[in-house]
Amino acid sequence: MSVLIVGSIALDTVKTPVEEHADLLGGSSSYASVGASFFSPVNLVGVVGEDFPKEHIDYLGSRRINLDGLQIVPGKTFRWSGEYMWDLNTRETRSVELNVFEHFNPTLPVGYSETPYVLLGNIAPKLQNHVLDQMNRPKFVVADTMDLWISIAKEDLTTLLKRVDMLILNDSEARQYTGETSLIKAGAKIRSLGPKFVAIKKGEHGCLLFGESQFFSCAAYPLEDIHDPTGAGDTFAGGLIGYLAARNHGEIRFDDLRKAVVYGSVMASYNVEAFSLERLRSLSQNDIDERYRMFQLMSQFEVIS
Amino acid sequence: MSVLIVGSIALDTVKTPVEEHADLLGGSSSYASVGASFFSPVNLVGVVGEDFPKEHIDYLGSRRINLDGLQIVPGKTFRWSGEYMWDLNTRETRSVELNVFEHFNPTLPVGYSETPYVLLGNIAPKLQNHVLDQMNRPKFVVADTMDLWISIAKEDLTTLLKRVDMLILNDSEARQYTGETSLIKAGAKIRSLGPKFVAIKKGEHGCLLFGESQFFSCAAYPLEDIHDPTGAGDTFAGGLIGYLAARNHGEIRFDDLRKAVVYGSVMASYNVEAFSLERLRSLSQNDIDERYRMFQLMSQFEVIS
Repeated sequence: MSVLIVGSIALDTVKTPVEEHADLLGGSSSYASVGASFFSPVNLVGVVGEDFPKEHIDYLGSRRINLDGLQIVPGKTFRWSGEYMWDLNTRETRSVELNVFEHFNPTLPVGYSETPYVLLGNIAPKLQNHVLDQMNRPKFVVADTMDLWISIAKEDLTTLLKRVDMLILNDSEARQYTGETSLIKAGAKIRSLGPKFVAIKKGEHGCLLFGESQFFSCAAYPLEDIHDPTGAGDTFAGGLIGYLAARNHGEIRFDDLRKAVVYGSVMASYNVEAFSLERLRSLSQNDIDERYRMFQLMSQFEVIS
Repeated sequence: MSVLIVGSIALDTVKTPVEEHADLLGGSSSYASVGASFFSPVNLVGVVGEDFPKEHIDYLGSRRINLDGLQIVPGKTFRWSGEYMWDLNTRETRSVELNVFEHFNPTLPVGYSETPYVLLGNIAPKLQNHVLDQMNRPKFVVADTMDLWISIAKEDLTTLLKRVDMLILNDSEARQYTGETSLIKAGAKIRSLGPKFVAIKKGEHGCLLFGESQFFSCAAYPLEDIHDPTGAGDTFAGGLIGYLAARNHGEIRFDDLRKAVVYGSVMASYNVEAFSLERLRSLSQNDIDERYRMFQLMSQFEVIS
């Protein structure tokens, strides 16, 4: 089944201690859509300016990504520039030019409203709510968010939580939103506000998944060399929702989400091996299967029937 | 089979944001020996002063812990006092009185030298080497260490590494010792210096286990309330070596160590639920089995045959 994905589309300039690259394809919607497209067809919603390179549109179109929801409007594309510190774990935003993204109004084209799976990528909670207003009872809705919205739009985010099945956020954001230092308490607190499931990402320490009475701790893949962490979270979310949509067997259970979290982690682990979406361009189904198997090998300690 | 465990025996004063308790049974050898005793008989090596409460000796003796190697000498017992910060992840040492521990010379009593399994708890690497000098070809040797020895006795530690099968240390110590920010690189680098296996502990983020071409990522148990983190690492090491000694089936394989790391994590997770060794006093085999099963449930995402 299909996945609707809304988020930003950007031209990124990324600097690491080793390299710097400009005008890369970026944005939460780009990463998430390509990540999901390995599993399911995608209905993308986003906005770019007239300067957006045709090659990027061609690339997205070459995947199973429907671009009917891509608005191309007068003006310049959203631009973000960031620099990663020596350990690649912390980054500083060097500049942000919202450009056409500033007045982004995610209006769904005809046909999108029936999409059964929805990923509300990292944009203002008000816009995430607006997308849901246009949907016709989707089967499963996942929302991503970030520290900025917790700071300036917490109320909108809390309203959104009542309408989504799952929230994805990172550890510092979970602590910021709930005021709890314990991630276990934070996960439970967010669940009490609406989402049946919560995934708390911990970067190099993996990811925690919370359900009603179940808990899953997913390891991170042990990469020796990370080239560009940009988009890891978006690719994770895309792989996760793409896998769920491909499963499509009645109600989503906790055991489905365990696997979805692992597939999301697989996609994110590949994504950080190169700048922008470069690694995903050459990724094969075999690569995905192989790394999924590696996650099994590195997590198991007992055969369980 | 039996385990020889050498380390400190202390009277601890521990302050958390919620509670403070004085003159608690503590020290790496106490925690590790009690942790190991749930699986295997222990030959303890340590030193205390004449002020050491008889009740603590009685308690250790009530477990499967042989105290022939416990030296009781004139003077006062080693005392440590520490305070945990609000998140219980960082602690400050408030005072250290080495007392009789300052001149500790771990001499093995008759019969100890044949002990097949050895845990060199956290003491000066020179003393750890000295213990090994007295051993008759043990089957498996695990060493623990700490930041202090990496700072002031790195050469002795490096000498020790050539003589042990496994090193246990935490993430910041692994980075400090190797100069690598990546724990994956740090684990490989330590292995290249001698130990076939390395366990890097990451506190609330679990533990990484490195073997020749294998890797295991063990989650941490999701405790909502931690009362006293003191001794968690020692209890982990004790549970780990105790489990290995109880297995006793020829050569130790990576798959044995996966389980040993989980059993160590189970023991550590119980230990931090109360001050000092209080939780271990009432712990049952059933408790251990139950939490081991919880580790399975929270780690699995696919049945693997």
